[in-house]
Amino acid sequence: MARTVDWDGDAIAAIDQRALPAEYRIRRLATVDAVVAAIGDLTIRGAPALGAAGALGVALAARRHPRDPGRVRAEAERVAAVRPTAVNLRRGVERALARLDDGADAVLAEACAVLDEDEATNRRLSARTADLLTELCGDRPLRLLTHCNSGALATVAWGTGLGAVRELAERGRVAEVLACETRPLLQGARLTVWELREMGVAHRLCVDAAGPSAIARGLVDAVVVGADRIAANGDAANKIGTYAHACAAIRHGVPVVVVAPESTVDHATPTGADITIEERAADEVRTIAGTPTAPAGTPVYNPAFDVTPAELLSAVVTERSTFRDGAWTVAAAPALR
Amino acid sequence: MARTVDWDGDAIAAIDQRALPAEYRIRRLATVDAVVAAIGDLTIRGAPALGAAGALGVALAARRHPRDPGRVRAEAERVAAVRPTAVNLRRGVERALARLDDGADAVLAEACAVLDEDEATNRRLSARTADLLTELCGDRPLRLLTHCNSGALATVAWGTGLGAVRELAERGRVAEVLACETRPLLQGARLTVWELREMGVAHRLCVDAAGPSAIARGLVDAVVVGADRIAANGDAANKIGTYAHACAAIRHGVPVVVVAPESTVDHATPTGADITIEERAADEVRTIAGTPTAPAGTPVYNPAFDVTPAELLSAVVTERSTFRDGAWTVAAAPALR
Repeated sequence: MARTVDWDGDAIAAIDQRALPAEYRIRRLATVDAVVAAIGDLTIRGAPALGAAGALGVALAARRHPRDPGRVRAEAERVAAVRPTAVNLRRGVERALARLDDGADAVLAEACAVLDEDEATNRRLSARTADLLTELCGDRPLRLLTHCNSGALATVAWGTGLGAVRELAERGRVAEVLACETRPLLQGARLTVWELREMGVAHRLCVDAAGPSAIARGLVDAVVVGADRIAANGDAANKIGTYAHACAAIRHGVPVVVVAPESTVDHATPTGADITIEERAADEVRTIAGTPTAPAGTPVYNPAFDVTPAELLSAVVTERSTFRDGAWTVAAAPALR
Repeated sequence: MARTVDWDGDAIAAIDQRALPAEYRIRRLATVDAVVAAIGDLTIRGAPALGAAGALGVALAARRHPRDPGRVRAEAERVAAVRPTAVNLRRGVERALARLDDGADAVLAEACAVLDEDEATNRRLSARTADLLTELCGDRPLRLLTHCNSGALATVAWGTGLGAVRELAERGRVAEVLACETRPLLQGARLTVWELREMGVAHRLCVDAAGPSAIARGLVDAVVVGADRIAANGDAANKIGTYAHACAAIRHGVPVVVVAPESTVDHATPTGADITIEERAADEVRTIAGTPTAPAGTPVYNPAFDVTPAELLSAVVTERSTFRDGAWTVAAAPALR
């Protein structure tokens, strides 16, 4: 598969994530208007992909209006404003914009660097995770369980949790992946399964509630997931359901590894208890793909994620650090692959 | 609400469970053909309700052919054969048929006794569970979590796990019920929420994966569920997902109580490891209400239930026995309510 968001020489090429898994479609975005629309309608989603799209959007504006920096800044602001709470989007926009005085080519080079760095980071943390899983489970094909989507589609390329699976698969060390569907929004069923099929990795889809039971029945060698936010003490916030797998895994001696870029670690947040858990819209739970599943108006409890305490995790792995046995260690010289 | 299956004086009156939660509709079944159709199309479902329908189906046949016992037996066999693996259905049919020599009225009386006994059993085990929960959690309004549907709709009347909730609610001791949607077939979202609304009990619906996290966040005082089968050592098989809640509950000191009729306890099965776990159709997982959620042909892991070991359960409660602290005790004289 292509990068989730990429530069094709003249325009942005983005995988249309709304069309998956039914259809794999690359959408070409040649104008700022098109970028604004694609971010707004969720053709592009996922924090790193939004950062890349923001930076590339500024590059498009700079090429279009090479002699009007004021206009470029206004266009950049328009891109950043589409999803005001997406920190990575604004960060990507600002990073590209910082090179505006050096001309449109410099802006584009900076935007492309954002993309390259994301892929390099993900390949590095995936390799580090693959090494760790081999150390924890032995050098053999593993049966892995994952939750939500932490693959290439959640980033610019390669992925984090699912990136580690990809790395292990390239080393011939994946027997099967059990992909949890991830209600309410079904990122596991829609996106992770699609990526696993693209990779050619053996997999089965299950409902989220079947994960803990599969662990108890000895069907899982390790649990590998991404993270939305990691506290200084190693507690990890990830998609709702992660905690349930970890509770079962600790009972059965199955390792749980959380994989995320260093930027996900928030050293200003002491513990998971300090992470605010976002509640999302009720209709996500009481409907599926627009079809009601419960009586109209049913009250809903819909936390977007849960916090798995560090004591249930075998390790948290980033591109340069590892949290294990209660402490962070930084790799001396992370090998570029 | 009416009984799930009842006798209206001349015919069977059954709640059409296919129409819920969108519509509450009583279907009148005046002939054996109608009973056969209603069992076949899942208007009537759930083991105790099938037993009742089978017995009442024989009563209909006996009234229609009072002078032709051979014909009645043939009609009875036709009813029992609609769902050949439903043990309760055949048991209900045979129990009514055993009174055929005493005439149609005796057959009907026996069928009605099947219904009355189911309701009496459920009221008794619900009262015993409510007493136990008050003992475990204190005499105060409780925040309860339940999974799947163990309510009136899963029985003839009143329910088991949800029957205990109903009993506690009548005592003014329910603050809120967190109902897990119960993928893949959504019995929680479709049926439990509907019953809670009918009861007037405060409730919220959540995805299954949110249950363990709610327990960790201190939002749940006790977990109350039904069971499909209980081993001699107290291990309980119930809808997939029950085990996940129990794993979280034990970590946070939240009681888990399994509620089922004595007939669910299989003393010939030593432990949960001896219970075969049924795998169901892949399309239950890769579609929702007919809409695909995953790429076509995706392989699926779809166990119908999981086994929660007795060590994670505070108690198993039936209408006359309690399994607690590793042993069964039988109530001396179960009070009829």
